[in-house]
Amino acid sequence: MTDLKIASDVVAQENDRRATALKSDYEALGSTLARRGVDIEAVTKKVSEFFVAVPSWGVGTGGTRFARFPGSGEPRGIFDKLDDCSVINQLTQATPTVSLHIPWDKMDARELKAKGDSLGLGFDAMNSNTFSDAPGQAHSYKYGSLSHVDAATRAQAVEHNIECIEIGKALGSKALTVWIGDGSNFPGQSNFTKAFERYLASMADVYKALPDDWRIFSEHKMYEPAFYSTIVQDWGTNYLIAQTLGPKAFCLVDLGHHAPNTNIEMIVARLIQFEKLGGFHFNDSKYGDDDLDAGAIEPYRLFLVFNELVDAEYRSVKGFHPAHMIDQSHNVTDPIESLISSANEIRRAYAQALIVDRKALSGYQDTNDALMASETLKRAYRADVEPILAEARRRAGGAIDPVATYRASGYRKKVSAERPASAAGSGGII
Amino acid sequence: MTDLKIASDVVAQENDRRATALKSDYEALGSTLARRGVDIEAVTKKVSEFFVAVPSWGVGTGGTRFARFPGSGEPRGIFDKLDDCSVINQLTQATPTVSLHIPWDKMDARELKAKGDSLGLGFDAMNSNTFSDAPGQAHSYKYGSLSHVDAATRAQAVEHNIECIEIGKALGSKALTVWIGDGSNFPGQSNFTKAFERYLASMADVYKALPDDWRIFSEHKMYEPAFYSTIVQDWGTNYLIAQTLGPKAFCLVDLGHHAPNTNIEMIVARLIQFEKLGGFHFNDSKYGDDDLDAGAIEPYRLFLVFNELVDAEYRSVKGFHPAHMIDQSHNVTDPIESLISSANEIRRAYAQALIVDRKALSGYQDTNDALMASETLKRAYRADVEPILAEARRRAGGAIDPVATYRASGYRKKVSAERPASAAGSGGII
Amino acid sequence: MTDLKIASDVVAQENDRRATALKSDYEALGSTLARRGVDIEAVTKKVSEFFVAVPSWGVGTGGTRFARFPGSGEPRGIFDKLDDCSVINQLTQATPTVSLHIPWDKMDARELKAKGDSLGLGFDAMNSNTFSDAPGQAHSYKYGSLSHVDAATRAQAVEHNIECIEIGKALGSKALTVWIGDGSNFPGQSNFTKAFERYLASMADVYKALPDDWRIFSEHKMYEPAFYSTIVQDWGTNYLIAQTLGPKAFCLVDLGHHAPNTNIEMIVARLIQFEKLGGFHFNDSKYGDDDLDAGAIEPYRLFLVFNELVDAEYRSVKGFHPAHMIDQSHNVTDPIESLISSANEIRRAYAQALIVDRKALSGYQDTNDALMASETLKRAYRADVEPILAEARRRAGGAIDPVATYRASGYRKKVSAERPASAAGSGGII
Amino acid sequence: MTDLKIASDVVAQENDRRATALKSDYEALGSTLARRGVDIEAVTKKVSEFFVAVPSWGVGTGGTRFARFPGSGEPRGIFDKLDDCSVINQLTQATPTVSLHIPWDKMDARELKAKGDSLGLGFDAMNSNTFSDAPGQAHSYKYGSLSHVDAATRAQAVEHNIECIEIGKALGSKALTVWIGDGSNFPGQSNFTKAFERYLASMADVYKALPDDWRIFSEHKMYEPAFYSTIVQDWGTNYLIAQTLGPKAFCLVDLGHHAPNTNIEMIVARLIQFEKLGGFHFNDSKYGDDDLDAGAIEPYRLFLVFNELVDAEYRSVKGFHPAHMIDQSHNVTDPIESLISSANEIRRAYAQALIVDRKALSGYQDTNDALMASETLKRAYRADVEPILAEARRRAGGAIDPVATYRASGYRKKVSAERPASAAGSGGII
Repeated sequence: MTDLKIASDVVAQENDRRATALKSDYEALGSTLARRGVDIEAVTKKVSEFFVAVPSWGVGTGGTRFARFPGSGEPRGIFDKLDDCSVINQLTQATPTVSLHIPWDKMDARELKAKGDSLGLGFDAMNSNTFSDAPGQAHSYKYGSLSHVDAATRAQAVEHNIECIEIGKALGSKALTVWIGDGSNFPGQSNFTKAFERYLASMADVYKALPDDWRIFSEHKMYEPAFYSTIVQDWGTNYLIAQTLGPKAFCLVDLGHHAPNTNIEMIVARLIQFEKLGGFHFNDSKYGDDDLDAGAIEPYRLFLVFNELVDAEYRSVKGFHPAHMIDQSHNVTDPIESLISSANEIRRAYAQALIVDRKALSGYQDTNDALMASETLKRAYRADVEPILAEARRRAGGAIDPVATYRASGYRKKVSAERPASAAGSGGII
Repeated sequence: MTDLKIASDVVAQENDRRATALKSDYEALGSTLARRGVDIEAVTKKVSEFFVAVPSWGVGTGGTRFARFPGSGEPRGIFDKLDDCSVINQLTQATPTVSLHIPWDKMDARELKAKGDSLGLGFDAMNSNTFSDAPGQAHSYKYGSLSHVDAATRAQAVEHNIECIEIGKALGSKALTVWIGDGSNFPGQSNFTKAFERYLASMADVYKALPDDWRIFSEHKMYEPAFYSTIVQDWGTNYLIAQTLGPKAFCLVDLGHHAPNTNIEMIVARLIQFEKLGGFHFNDSKYGDDDLDAGAIEPYRLFLVFNELVDAEYRSVKGFHPAHMIDQSHNVTDPIESLISSANEIRRAYAQALIVDRKALSGYQDTNDALMASETLKRAYRADVEPILAEARRRAGGAIDPVATYRASGYRKKVSAERPASAAGSGGII
Repeated sequence: MTDLKIASDVVAQENDRRATALKSDYEALGSTLARRGVDIEAVTKKVSEFFVAVPSWGVGTGGTRFARFPGSGEPRGIFDKLDDCSVINQLTQATPTVSLHIPWDKMDARELKAKGDSLGLGFDAMNSNTFSDAPGQAHSYKYGSLSHVDAATRAQAVEHNIECIEIGKALGSKALTVWIGDGSNFPGQSNFTKAFERYLASMADVYKALPDDWRIFSEHKMYEPAFYSTIVQDWGTNYLIAQTLGPKAFCLVDLGHHAPNTNIEMIVARLIQFEKLGGFHFNDSKYGDDDLDAGAIEPYRLFLVFNELVDAEYRSVKGFHPAHMIDQSHNVTDPIESLISSANEIRRAYAQALIVDRKALSGYQDTNDALMASETLKRAYRADVEPILAEARRRAGGAIDPVATYRASGYRKKVSAERPASAAGSGGII
Repeated sequence: MTDLKIASDVVAQENDRRATALKSDYEALGSTLARRGVDIEAVTKKVSEFFVAVPSWGVGTGGTRFARFPGSGEPRGIFDKLDDCSVINQLTQATPTVSLHIPWDKMDARELKAKGDSLGLGFDAMNSNTFSDAPGQAHSYKYGSLSHVDAATRAQAVEHNIECIEIGKALGSKALTVWIGDGSNFPGQSNFTKAFERYLASMADVYKALPDDWRIFSEHKMYEPAFYSTIVQDWGTNYLIAQTLGPKAFCLVDLGHHAPNTNIEMIVARLIQFEKLGGFHFNDSKYGDDDLDAGAIEPYRLFLVFNELVDAEYRSVKGFHPAHMIDQSHNVTDPIESLISSANEIRRAYAQALIVDRKALSGYQDTNDALMASETLKRAYRADVEPILAEARRRAGGAIDPVATYRASGYRKKVSAERPASAAGSGGII
């Protein structure tokens, strides 16, 4: 029996207060959609079956190189983190899995598995970390990891990734996500070609250790922490990696890792077409890798990404099953609230994409009717599908209004009393 | 009596087909909004009173430096343009004024006025042109106009602006918009300081000729047609101009004229606070001054701009009456359709901003509740206010679905038969 | 015997005035370089053997969508253009080939060849044009060319490319450059996947017609003339094209066609590593595809690109022979002067890259000595290699100071008298 | 007598090895410049009198939000920092002052002053810190400081700034630099107008405490640590601040704090023209506030900034005396080496700007000779002025090759033995 962190009656009470309004809104939306030939029940069902993984590190308060301002009741370790993650899933019924980060979440795998089981949580992709040094580590990653000039450092980084696979196997995970910070801060510091050769060789070693039913995701990023060049700087390089490694290697797209003005949905389409889209790290951004809440800044962009995903489903693309994960930094909000909200925004974009009239769209595309093609997307995007999302949550046992219900539950206050405050941080940098 | 270019019965027929659905949607939305404490009728009324000017040049097909691909039935001159503009206004009831461009639209002012009157159209801000050479012009603007090193060229540019004021006076216009392309393509080509001194002196001469009840708008732009420096490159310089010239001088914000990633709504807020916001050139963009249809690329950004405008109304900012104008280039659509659609999108953003719960928002801001503050804006933005827009049009005699009605009317086909095709263009540039 | 457009004695006279100073500077530089272990004669020899093609369209004055301000003495056709190109080559001895653009330069191939021969000019890559409509063309490219939804339009575009190959064969060209403007201005207007499938099929048809000793270059560009999506939007897509087409297909890099902040030299390195770098369109830019003179805005970036090219030579990369071509728009300068200057800047970057101490650099890279690695590049970049460039020109019969010599020759005045003025253009767009 | 951290004989020995080559290079450069009408001695003198302040925090190893990889021998406190700063000044003779950061460098002012005196170091602008929380602080800056919604938090931030002034008075400083991170991560989180009103009121309180012979510098930044809006987001807002506060308030320009593609030198020119340029934080950047070493990425941009400064001197702008300070984060180099190198790069840009032929430039500008105007700047920029910089150092008692001399001195090894290693950091954020 699942260990529920929010009392069921709190959820029930909060839902009761909103049930009538939801019913009315859901019916009105159903009528409107029916007039467009869309069956609201079919959409609600698909939305109910759409899930996104939560990152274990996302339930702690994030920070910048200038400072970290801790929140109250921050998780002290992976068990607290899993408790927090379970709250998100209990209320949204959209996040049944957690993505771990090694070594931050390292502990006995059986205990982890048991804890996850007790909370009704499974484990998504494993994340390795060779962008910071762990205490006692033999070789520093200051000048790189998988692409380091020194063979021993590369071997250590390879070993760490293999260890992540081992832990993941015990937990039921089926994928390894590799994001590294390797790069350079000065022209000349690194030889682009030799460094990439070393990277590919290291990744090939990791790939060899990958079980047959696993996938390995490489993640591109334009810059940061390296500020002149980054070894996996864009999807072009990322594609070369996946292609070089083999059929279990795929590209991961983090929405905040691109150059200004980049058309990200087009990259998604290309990777689908060439069978190398592994999945997503969802978040939103205005300037760089801002790691803001999904849909907070440019919600239409998130919709356009989902438009590609639903289009691929519609075209029955073979072997298409991208992984969905949130990757955000919650600096000024309660992380649980941000993750609840973000899971909803991601489902919202999916729901909107589901109600696009694809047959009409295709017709407009074939006749170069740019205006009506655009309008067809925007009509779907304009629909306020919140009643669908709320109804999907309600039916699955979640909350009609999950943030309000979370606040009503007093969960944060309770854990704040149990968990001592963590220290504020200061980067010592201007 | 107004000369209607679309037969009234076409509009009536098309509206009849959609009246029942609209009634149903409008009522459902009314109920939902009422639950949030928003009176739909008050919103519909405000939307009905919101207008945006159409640019005379916008009804022709645009192009790029690489090519222009003409549409059919393109206007042959300002009278055709006004006919086209009247169609937009007839169907949307949102665009009762036209913004002229001199010398492109130059002709006898009384005839112009009479033509406008016959179509029920007034005249918005006048636009001068010193970014291209008119046939027979004494001095070329190749190396600048109001900031040119040569006094005679500057004087010619000043004279042209004064002429625009004179024409505008006869037409009932109350504002002059000055956008120039002056700048440089090479470091060193222009002395930034001396050029700006010359610019300010020229503008002071234009300002002297401005009637007391007029406003002069200067427009900033990051780049293009100059590709290294532009004399009014951003709102900082634009503000300095308005401040230097005097109380009738204001800054015009074109949404596509900023650096990548710029927070435009914040610029709008600053200009309002310092009493120098003159108005807008609405459009949308992904890369630069793309001049795409308003709301086509990043609709949330458009909403956030209107959020500032409605907030200023809410705070009863003194003397606040920004001018609204569309400025787009329609390269692949029927320009009339794009302008209809854009006028709707602009009203949509306004309507969404009107239903923001400003009291709640203010409360969240005062308690640093970032998540709920964001959610408050997004809740308003998520509302599908199309029924409000449609009802506002219907009540004013416009079309419930103006694009569909326009297509049903056969207007484009009719004018295509009357107006000979114009030539395709090729820039001869790669 | 070559038909020289600048009298030899003008060149001789101008060189005489500068010979002593050059000798002194060359010797001083030689001493400095010798102290670093660099043989100036070896560098001068390599520079003398480095050539870059001039684009036929580059000798006309360019413009923007807002206006084109013609220069005096603009070429009336391809023969005038070749005359102008020959002046550039005569003075710089760096540009012995011209890159043609069809249909702009279309005429009898034998006559073209004879004219080139008389001027001592050869023909570089052929450029097709399906981004604008030629008079009398059956199908418009308004909505695309090689990726158009309509098969007949695609076939026409394929045919045009094959025609370019045919002309090129007669002229001695060995490459076809394909740059297209296909894309979309609205989300939804185009289905990314289907459009790219059509593009690849069309290109495969062109590829079939390619002689065995030819190469085909596809060129990526982020945006413009399409402003939401572009079919070959970046090097990732470009690589997929070259890989899909086959061993004669390569990627062309135009320095101005990337997203803001992109590390272009890294893209160059990746394409070299994966054996798909076809060559370059050289120019400089600050904002977008500004097509400014090479080295005018960010000369260090140009150097860093050449650093990759020289590094590849140094590593003896197999089959490495990128094509070099200038592609600029000269809006405010005499195009001949800009092309002279740009050819020099390109050679300058090459010369600076040649004097990088690659052994020391490699050592610093292997020891993570970022500061000295950077300093090693900058020390080479800081060297004022103008004496090497001037000496290379002088020895080959060119001008020590080619712009001054050009001005002294009175060439522009002479052709201005012969060639009637072309019209100013105005885009009719704001 | 100054406490020299590098033994004089080490400097002398190292200089001796390079004296002959320097003499030769200096004379050759002198001849070349003389031919252009430039007196090398005059330039060397001006360069000798140009100084730039070093930031106390710059001598520690920087980091990112992902990790900090410490160097060896990192300073344990302000005394160690001052020792390190003195090494930079000893070898470059270009950095006689240090800019302190409170509270990081807080200690008894008399002791600080005495320590500085012993090392021959003075104190430049004071830097306050309200972007991170100090231990024991009553009110957190998590949601802002000078613009916080809470009056007590604002008062605390004002008090802290006044304290910085007090400390600075005791140290002989004459300026306060205020950079804050206030802003928001979500649309709606902050009311732009009210927040800026609060900021201006707080700054007015700080301004009141400013001695008559002091200046206050406000610093703009596009983003980070706030990722949606930043209160002093650009120079436009920065200008409004300086203007609102009064004649002792000026704008500080950090070269890395602008939107992509921004023409920074133009902003510098505008601020000079409107008498509000306070000074600089020098560094270089490719993507954002990368805080890389000055001149490492785009050296021509640094030159163009200095071109404006020298132009202002040339035009004898009244009251023109900008403050020069380095602000960098040294993540992968020995910070002392990076600061030595950066001080040289800044002087290099100044020297190059000094040898611009301003009379010729002005003439080209007045005749719209864009090509020769550009060439005039580039000719000066191309000059390898390293012999001037080296000679200026040598004559003042510094090192001809300061990095090599520093390495030869064994300083880092010595302090590494004395100073225990500091901990690596990990942000716990992806």
